Amino acid sequence: MSTRLSGRGPAELRPIRTQVDFVRTATGSVLIEAGGTMLLCTASIEDSLPPWMKKDTTRGWLTAEYNMLPASTTPRKPRERSKVDGRTTEIQRLIGRSLRAVLNFDALGPRTVTIDCEVLQADGGTRTLGITGGFIALARALKTHPTTQDSVDTILSESVAAVSCGLVDGELLLDLDYSEDHRAEVDFNVVMTGRGEFVELQGTAEGKPFGRKQLDAMLELAEGGLRELATIQQTAIHAS
Amino acid sequence: MSTRLSGRGPAELRPIRTQVDFVRTATGSVLIEAGGTMLLCTASIEDSLPPWMKKDTTRGWLTAEYNMLPASTTPRKPRERSKVDGRTTEIQRLIGRSLRAVLNFDALGPRTVTIDCEVLQADGGTRTLGITGGFIALARALKTHPTTQDSVDTILSESVAAVSCGLVDGELLLDLDYSEDHRAEVDFNVVMTGRGEFVELQGTAEGKPFGRKQLDAMLELAEGGLRELATIQQTAIHAS
Amino acid sequence: MSTRLSGRGPAELRPIRTQVDFVRTATGSVLIEAGGTMLLCTASIEDSLPPWMKKDTTRGWLTAEYNMLPASTTPRKPRERSKVDGRTTEIQRLIGRSLRAVLNFDALGPRTVTIDCEVLQADGGTRTLGITGGFIALARALKTHPTTQDSVDTILSESVAAVSCGLVDGELLLDLDYSEDHRAEVDFNVVMTGRGEFVELQGTAEGKPFGRKQLDAMLELAEGGLRELATIQQTAIHAS
Amino acid sequence: MSTRLSGRGPAELRPIRTQVDFVRTATGSVLIEAGGTMLLCTASIEDSLPPWMKKDTTRGWLTAEYNMLPASTTPRKPRERSKVDGRTTEIQRLIGRSLRAVLNFDALGPRTVTIDCEVLQADGGTRTLGITGGFIALARALKTHPTTQDSVDTILSESVAAVSCGLVDGELLLDLDYSEDHRAEVDFNVVMTGRGEFVELQGTAEGKPFGRKQLDAMLELAEGGLRELATIQQTAIHAS
Amino acid sequence: MSTRLSGRGPAELRPIRTQVDFVRTATGSVLIEAGGTMLLCTASIEDSLPPWMKKDTTRGWLTAEYNMLPASTTPRKPRERSKVDGRTTEIQRLIGRSLRAVLNFDALGPRTVTIDCEVLQADGGTRTLGITGGFIALARALKTHPTTQDSVDTILSESVAAVSCGLVDGELLLDLDYSEDHRAEVDFNVVMTGRGEFVELQGTAEGKPFGRKQLDAMLELAEGGLRELATIQQTAIHAS
Amino acid sequence: MSTRLSGRGPAELRPIRTQVDFVRTATGSVLIEAGGTMLLCTASIEDSLPPWMKKDTTRGWLTAEYNMLPASTTPRKPRERSKVDGRTTEIQRLIGRSLRAVLNFDALGPRTVTIDCEVLQADGGTRTLGITGGFIALARALKTHPTTQDSVDTILSESVAAVSCGLVDGELLLDLDYSEDHRAEVDFNVVMTGRGEFVELQGTAEGKPFGRKQLDAMLELAEGGLRELATIQQTAIHAS
Repeated sequence: MSTRLSGRGPAELRPIRTQVDFVRTATGSVLIEAGGTMLLCTASIEDSLPPWMKKDTTRGWLTAEYNMLPASTTPRKPRERSKVDGRTTEIQRLIGRSLRAVLNFDALGPRTVTIDCEVLQADGGTRTLGITGGFIALARALKTHPTTQDSVDTILSESVAAVSCGLVDGELLLDLDYSEDHRAEVDFNVVMTGRGEFVELQGTAEGKPFGRKQLDAMLELAEGGLRELATIQQTAIHAS
Repeated sequence: MSTRLSGRGPAELRPIRTQVDFVRTATGSVLIEAGGTMLLCTASIEDSLPPWMKKDTTRGWLTAEYNMLPASTTPRKPRERSKVDGRTTEIQRLIGRSLRAVLNFDALGPRTVTIDCEVLQADGGTRTLGITGGFIALARALKTHPTTQDSVDTILSESVAAVSCGLVDGELLLDLDYSEDHRAEVDFNVVMTGRGEFVELQGTAEGKPFGRKQLDAMLELAEGGLRELATIQQTAIHAS
Repeated sequence: MSTRLSGRGPAELRPIRTQVDFVRTATGSVLIEAGGTMLLCTASIEDSLPPWMKKDTTRGWLTAEYNMLPASTTPRKPRERSKVDGRTTEIQRLIGRSLRAVLNFDALGPRTVTIDCEVLQADGGTRTLGITGGFIALARALKTHPTTQDSVDTILSESVAAVSCGLVDGELLLDLDYSEDHRAEVDFNVVMTGRGEFVELQGTAEGKPFGRKQLDAMLELAEGGLRELATIQQTAIHAS
Repeated sequence: MSTRLSGRGPAELRPIRTQVDFVRTATGSVLIEAGGTMLLCTASIEDSLPPWMKKDTTRGWLTAEYNMLPASTTPRKPRERSKVDGRTTEIQRLIGRSLRAVLNFDALGPRTVTIDCEVLQADGGTRTLGITGGFIALARALKTHPTTQDSVDTILSESVAAVSCGLVDGELLLDLDYSEDHRAEVDFNVVMTGRGEFVELQGTAEGKPFGRKQLDAMLELAEGGLRELATIQQTAIHAS
Repeated sequence: MSTRLSGRGPAELRPIRTQVDFVRTATGSVLIEAGGTMLLCTASIEDSLPPWMKKDTTRGWLTAEYNMLPASTTPRKPRERSKVDGRTTEIQRLIGRSLRAVLNFDALGPRTVTIDCEVLQADGGTRTLGITGGFIALARALKTHPTTQDSVDTILSESVAAVSCGLVDGELLLDLDYSEDHRAEVDFNVVMTGRGEFVELQGTAEGKPFGRKQLDAMLELAEGGLRELATIQQTAIHAS
Repeated sequence: MSTRLSGRGPAELRPIRTQVDFVRTATGSVLIEAGGTMLLCTASIEDSLPPWMKKDTTRGWLTAEYNMLPASTTPRKPRERSKVDGRTTEIQRLIGRSLRAVLNFDALGPRTVTIDCEVLQADGGTRTLGITGGFIALARALKTHPTTQDSVDTILSESVAAVSCGLVDGELLLDLDYSEDHRAEVDFNVVMTGRGEFVELQGTAEGKPFGRKQLDAMLELAEGGLRELATIQQTAIHAS
């Protein structure tokens, strides 16, 4: 029996809505919502490489930035203008690593993809939705850009998505919203390819340490949600 | 005979679209578009005052921030994370001054309104659209917030909106898009109340100085556009 | 009947004093005073170009910096050492734009002019005096520098100066000092060439919006002052 | 058959050396080495609380800083003096979370513990050694400080240590040194209490995604190493 | 036989010019020139104390800032706006220490004096002229400020001044200008009270180490110049 | 009769301990202790030159950094991560100048030596111990590096060391510890070559000015200590 305020079952995702090509200035873009969490994910492709790569001019690179808009929370969150806080740094590094794991840099060629995940409204799960939406924007951009559109399947060997799960008041729950995340004893983020293999696992005991059995149960819960997300991604990527 | 690529007449505004309450985390919000320019304007009301006002606890304050998202331009614009550039500073000061001009701080009482103008897609006129949309978000927020909803008409004595005009290839044009703004010999921004009085005037000769006659013609052009914008604002503010 | 503390008439400038070549390390320099406001304006010419211009090596550039010395106000103003405030940014951009409007960059050739406006003593009108004095320093520098002295008239097609005016306690006043500026309902800065055309207009309603008639009256007031300033500039530029 | 350059078996830790009370200015300290990796871990206890905790004055807090000395790598690594890089931020947040997981803040009372992990020589595994050594410094400090020495067992309910493991050239290896870490396809950091429960799990596929079986094997490998480290910690903590 | 370009004898100071009360916004000020070096030194007295002194509210404090204006050198020196360089830091600490050495903080009472040394034109010896001129500004300010004017002699027990000397091309020279300083093998700055005792000594071998005999000769040279400077200071302080 | 808490005579150095090659990642290193002060000094040699030297590629350079670890003092000193304080800047400039004074840059050739002085435990005299220990690390590095080991005697013409002395409660003392330094009326740092010539002299009257006789006595005291330090340095440099 679920205790979720939203009425969701413990293993149920929040409703996902996607709107591709939301902005036309980026090569690919998607406005993605999961319940009360809304992100604008964009992918900008540029025919240049970061300075540290200048010695190898045959391969590409992907970098990600994550940013919560001040009005995405109540109360308003001060804008990060003089320094970037540790949480932001950690999240954008995770998003970048996750997307790079399915990208073939040789096939991409000497260009840089920048993924921007702008959080317009935050209600938990922004980092995992950034990966899920970031992948959609990336795939849309590769399909659009003249130098990559003929080799999208080679550049992206498989899809990648992410979801959170956790132990809240002793119950295992999928896709935590902010009020659940806040109370979670264990918080788990799972990044997985469309073929069901792990790209990244991050589990943290906020309250008390957890044992092996709980770990196994959380991984199973996450896998179910990630299969659904992979399907949603394909639909969005192929929307016209 | 107009030479505008868009087919617009010289004195014609770009089509405006508004979507109020776009994000629910801010007290008031609007997604506003003018042709290819799209901003998310939000107003967050907080029951506290900035430190420098601590001696006077009976009146309120309004401050504005303006930010271009990196993906709002092609090519992508690097994120302002370690310092804010001069143009951004100039624009957010203008937006703040313009909105403060119609706000009664005594009636607002000891609270701070923060206006955030996030440029999602840029095609010219972002600063003027920030004022026009910022006013809508402000009015929506005052109508929503429990401590201000009964005195909105006292707090906001009148509306304020802004538009650009300029001299492009010798022709006077209203509401310049990026390609026109780029070529403009004179660039004029006019901020006006709903009753037709000036709040701010900024005219710059980019190419060669201009005389008094051209000034008069530009002011007239702007006034026409500003009357239309005032009507659009009222419709958005009263949307349910 | 004027109400000015200084005894000046409403349309009267403060007394101007200039001392050219005040420092010999800059190519051109002037110590300029208007009443209690004193600036050291310098122009340094260097035979190099800013990095962003490196593709076009036939034309020059001019950039301006504005700085209030800490002891220029009572009480002392903290030194801007870790970041530059918004007002400073706004002012130095205005000074740069104004001087560039009369400078022929092709005739200048591949060199950079840097104008520094150091406020030694502040009593209102520092930004307009920076433009007026900056032009004197610029003209002196071009007359001095071996690569420009033979083509000063081509490089500088005409002169440029600036003055403020405003509506104070319902009266239109020219060239506001600090105590007047502080009380002004409308604050207007006008930048004009020696031939009487506008380079920049900035008008702000500090208290309540202003109508078209007031605008016209303020422009007329400014024009009178600017004609006087143009004469003073010529005298200083040709001092030996 | 192991392929490790050091001659170690795949499930063998590097030799650990500890020297407690290495500096006397910190409340507790240890110089800890694992093969070629050497850290100075210190714990400083202060009778004050961070500003954000000022409302709750009955409980304490622990924060951690991680820093690689410039000479800890070849070639020398530039000192982080103007900003802290993302990797450093990520690591010090992990060390702090891990140590806080076994600390009873009510029992600690209104004081702050700061753990400093200074990397003197880096050869892989600095973040996990920071947790293992940080715990020793913390326990030594609590035993030393007059206000905590009588309740160390209540303040620290159990011990915590960390180790890395990974998949290198298809082989599962425990406690990677730099040359192994550099080549690893999968990199896993496991933080565990002395009683064998997880505090934090972080697994990253650097090369290609990994499946559930590999995950299970890595966790087993890590558990073996962590049991050994728990014994080494107790010996160091009780050294006189 | 002297080899100085200026024709000065080896033990001769550059000509000193002073203009007190150069700016009226500071409590005390002096424009001071030594040959081609020109500084504006100001002293601002405020009835508040720095935050770190808040526990002791009976005594005062003095702090100094040193700043080279960009146009004070040829070529122009970039403005220090995002960070302060090491040389500037070193110099302003020296000026502050030197002036504090003759200031009685108990007699000053709970107020802060800020000395600003602005270098308008640099030709060597700016740090020593900053001390010499800073003392004049300080004494003028104490004579002017209503709370200190009756106890100047108690607050300032004696005067302080500074001069450089050095070994240039094997010859001992007093008061080095830039071209001499640049070539100096040994560079010595001596800060001395009006009664002839040392406040600070800083000697640096730029080229090769120096022996005891050279040290003694340099100290003697400096003492001669410092006696002259003490007289010049008194004249300036008592100018009406 | 000495009044030193440690029982040392007025002209006695604190006991010195050195441990060379403490870290293997730097080209040369030494852990050096003088009483309760402990520093890790390292010298890293790199075959590249700082950007500002790129025009002269035949000579080398040496630069020094000084850093107090947070746990080197009680209470803990906040880490310098966003800016470097004035004292740190002053000290590392002194260390760099002192070591450069005995280094032959032509013989060094086009490479950069970076000296890092990390203060692990502070009890007075860290800057002078940084010079003394920095020289040992430098000599060890030059003996180790393949491109310099055959010409160490040419590159380093002589040794350099430093010591403090001062006037404490009216008594002249050598090598002040923190409690003595804190009370000192005059604080003197002397940097001297192994042949007994001055490289740098810095004397500051903290309390009241000092006369010529006291200066002479302090220099004599310092010379005695510096002869001992030169011997200790040679022993450490030649340790195997």
